[in-house]
Amino acid sequence: MKANRYAIVVAAGSGKRMGAPLPKQFLTIGGKPMLIHTLERLHSFDSNMHLVLVLHPDYFSFWKALTEEYRFIVPHTIVAGGQERFHSVKNAIDFIQDESAVVGIHDAARPLVSIDTLVRCFETAEQKGNAVPVIALNDSLRVVNDTGNSAVERSLYRLVQTPQCFAMNILRAAFDKPYQPLFTDDASVVESIGHTIHLVEGNRENLKITTAEDLRWAEWQLTT
Amino acid sequence: MKANRYAIVVAAGSGKRMGAPLPKQFLTIGGKPMLIHTLERLHSFDSNMHLVLVLHPDYFSFWKALTEEYRFIVPHTIVAGGQERFHSVKNAIDFIQDESAVVGIHDAARPLVSIDTLVRCFETAEQKGNAVPVIALNDSLRVVNDTGNSAVERSLYRLVQTPQCFAMNILRAAFDKPYQPLFTDDASVVESIGHTIHLVEGNRENLKITTAEDLRWAEWQLTT
Repeated sequence: MKANRYAIVVAAGSGKRMGAPLPKQFLTIGGKPMLIHTLERLHSFDSNMHLVLVLHPDYFSFWKALTEEYRFIVPHTIVAGGQERFHSVKNAIDFIQDESAVVGIHDAARPLVSIDTLVRCFETAEQKGNAVPVIALNDSLRVVNDTGNSAVERSLYRLVQTPQCFAMNILRAAFDKPYQPLFTDDASVVESIGHTIHLVEGNRENLKITTAEDLRWAEWQLTT
Repeated sequence: MKANRYAIVVAAGSGKRMGAPLPKQFLTIGGKPMLIHTLERLHSFDSNMHLVLVLHPDYFSFWKALTEEYRFIVPHTIVAGGQERFHSVKNAIDFIQDESAVVGIHDAARPLVSIDTLVRCFETAEQKGNAVPVIALNDSLRVVNDTGNSAVERSLYRLVQTPQCFAMNILRAAFDKPYQPLFTDDASVVESIGHTIHLVEGNRENLKITTAEDLRWAEWQLTT
């Protein structure tokens, strides 16, 4: 029997870097909130996948009003966010009581993940226990150190995207450990309990929308 | 007296990754070749700056025809490219006989460098001997190693752009050394003779146009 698929969509951030009054996941792209674009993309990949949306409780009623305004009817469950991304994801994991599931954890601010990337991530995780989408660097890379900075060999590095996908039992074991500030993404949490991370190809447009410029770019991508 | 400024524009690549019959620097963006956009941007930053364009000799006459077709009249000198980027830059350095100059080396495929970035790069190099524009990473970063891959602390890393600017005497000394395959950019050449590289803020749109998707993005940026 095929494992159930879940997507945890992390939208608990405050989006302060955007310089906007609203958290960025609610800003509109082509007349529709970013978060709705993201959820629709995941749903179009696999309409049987369970969607678990992590929101700050302050925005529960705001989100409900948005779904009504935009007639967004894709079924999803809402879970309250925590202090850090780690705690937000942990709350969603606690909700999912399905130990044979495969779970993809996706940034709400990545509405441009491609269907191909979603296929690669979920299918590889189903086979190997986890999968993380990455892309190569087009630019040279330098590392800052105590005495200044120095060049590093960029061909050895990869930029990490989402969804980061994991077998549920592995994910639960990893998030049962205490939070560490070194955890910058979910793969680093799973890696901390000794698992090897499997890399798959992401897509270059799958940018994490961070600045007003990125938002304009996503608007162009989604409306042309 | 203020040092003379030079910009070496490296356009000697074959652009094979674009899947186009022409090297990418000649592809049009909003109806005008990328290379003309790049040269015009540099000229608009400082109309007294000397422009040194490095081209593959196969494209000398093609470029001449392009300048006529697009009535591109900004003065510039053409130098023949070499085997690797290192050799192309070295040919341009050999042409510049002005030991007190400040020289910025810029990718032809970065037409979207901002005037602010150009100001930061040249002014810092004029004060400190060199300057390289960088941006922070929005994505997590992993490094590939013999046994797989692992997370690294992204806050310590910077993506490197151009123009990379240097005092002429430093640049000449660095490029007088033999070529090494480890040189991925001009800063790494200068670093190899013991200089500390000074980092300044680049601009996120200053993308190196590599794919057809990047080209479409640049078109949108330059025409809206």
